[in-house]
Amino acid sequence: MKSAASRGFALGIDIGGTFTKLVALSEDHLVLAEGRLPTEAAKGPASLVERAAEACRDLCAASGLEASSARAVGVGVAGLVDATRGILVACPNLPGWENTAVASAFSAAFGCPAVVENDANAFALGEAVLGAGRGCDPVALVTLGTGVGGGVVAGGRILHGRHGYAGEFGHMALTLDQGPRCACGARGCVEAYLRSSHVVALALELAASSTEPPTPALARALAAGEATARTVGEAARAGDPVGLAVFRQLGQYLGIAIANVISAFNPQVVIAGGGVALAGEVLLTVARSTALARVMEPLAADVAILPAALADRGGVLGAGLLALAHES
Amino acid sequence: MKSAASRGFALGIDIGGTFTKLVALSEDHLVLAEGRLPTEAAKGPASLVERAAEACRDLCAASGLEASSARAVGVGVAGLVDATRGILVACPNLPGWENTAVASAFSAAFGCPAVVENDANAFALGEAVLGAGRGCDPVALVTLGTGVGGGVVAGGRILHGRHGYAGEFGHMALTLDQGPRCACGARGCVEAYLRSSHVVALALELAASSTEPPTPALARALAAGEATARTVGEAARAGDPVGLAVFRQLGQYLGIAIANVISAFNPQVVIAGGGVALAGEVLLTVARSTALARVMEPLAADVAILPAALADRGGVLGAGLLALAHES
Repeated sequence: MKSAASRGFALGIDIGGTFTKLVALSEDHLVLAEGRLPTEAAKGPASLVERAAEACRDLCAASGLEASSARAVGVGVAGLVDATRGILVACPNLPGWENTAVASAFSAAFGCPAVVENDANAFALGEAVLGAGRGCDPVALVTLGTGVGGGVVAGGRILHGRHGYAGEFGHMALTLDQGPRCACGARGCVEAYLRSSHVVALALELAASSTEPPTPALARALAAGEATARTVGEAARAGDPVGLAVFRQLGQYLGIAIANVISAFNPQVVIAGGGVALAGEVLLTVARSTALARVMEPLAADVAILPAALADRGGVLGAGLLALAHES
Repeated sequence: MKSAASRGFALGIDIGGTFTKLVALSEDHLVLAEGRLPTEAAKGPASLVERAAEACRDLCAASGLEASSARAVGVGVAGLVDATRGILVACPNLPGWENTAVASAFSAAFGCPAVVENDANAFALGEAVLGAGRGCDPVALVTLGTGVGGGVVAGGRILHGRHGYAGEFGHMALTLDQGPRCACGARGCVEAYLRSSHVVALALELAASSTEPPTPALARALAAGEATARTVGEAARAGDPVGLAVFRQLGQYLGIAIANVISAFNPQVVIAGGGVALAGEVLLTVARSTALARVMEPLAADVAILPAALADRGGVLGAGLLALAHES
């Protein structure tokens, strides 16, 4: 039996707006080492690449690995990524990082081949291979967080489209030019309804208009401006009437978005991930019934709608898988 | 140089609600023979298979070909097709044909391998290889007719999803449970807005409410209940104010539907085909500007939105291409 140190492995990196996660993944998909560092986006991409390389060296050393012997490094990053050219093209959550040649920067700093993907695409690959999509094909993922994204894995490969921008489910429309304004400028995008800030806005709105008041804990958090999508989700799971009303409404929106993904891709499974989806079955039960009632029966008959299994590790594990696939 | 008779060729068949089209296609994509017969759907699929086989024999004979030496037969049919099993699963426009084993029936009658696809998927392949999508990858098609469908070709292959139902753009939602009722039972589907019967309904509605009356020709057709989507499209192209208002409104709906397809698939080209799309630039100009304003800039920067180049031959040519690909 080989030791961890002599086994082939690859590095996965998931760059988010706040934290950057790191993983060393063996050929047989075992996590050999795992860690994270603050992204500190304002310092720019060159700073992150350098700090991530150092963090990977330390992390590997602590697990008896040489970072320099990694076969490849896979990078997931929040934004539109030109996967062929390895360039981050647009990134509202990483201001000033537009048009960074991410792949070549990581390749130079790590001394091995680098491949870069949109973070939700990497997450979709993670779920397809190691998570809720194991054994299913195709696998579609919708991620609900600060922004709303997605990805599709078919035949074991990320569906890229022309440049790697496929799966931007957050900017599909739910209405004909009505509804809340999205960060992209349009109205009625899936993201405008299902991003974490809208969860809080809806909770405030429903708390003000509901005949049943929220529980004292949620009322306090809302009044203090301290409520987050997670707070509202926890309140809903605990039976808070306002929290439940919020996620019942969001479940309908998510259900229509998922129905559209099913009609477009005929997936075997649609997975909901990201912070907003941590509300769990409170959200997914309504989303599932809405989606399955909307799509044509043969499409509904053979699709599962499931929560992500890898939680916030899906992106970094997917990035590691990307790097392993790059080598093979 | 080989004669047409000794060249390898395949047969393509496109089964619509009214007519079934036939083509014999050479390896190098030349149309060697082409014809059609009435579908007479009420007589059932076995009758059509027999009549189509006879029509193909006659058609081939008239062009110096032996139908029995066709390498394969490709069949496009209006409905949900399980492409792996070769079964027509659901087909609102061919009542009673549900669950027909189309591939095995054609294979037995023609004495060669048969492959079956949703007609819009076949159309998408036709446009990708021989039409408006030549040289582009991926190619997305939206078909607007009695129903609304679609298909995506990526890397030269039809994107199937799990069973072959991918690309059902007609049943993606444009509204949150509002808008006209669709044939599928849901409200607000793309099909409910863009099918040919809704073009006429909208023309009647706008003729009644418009400050500018329709031209006498369109007014007469509407009053006599003789207007079709084609009549309204021709009126719009001739500058009729009601016709123009109809297609400006439909152009916005189509633009949002196309924007959703772009965000989902990142295609290099989106093609609009089918009878309603014959209105041409009157419809497409509005659809194009609506779609490109809605999608994120990097996605908009590199996509063309074009009319179909093969008109109503796209499906049958695509079916012939499918058959040729099946052999290779």
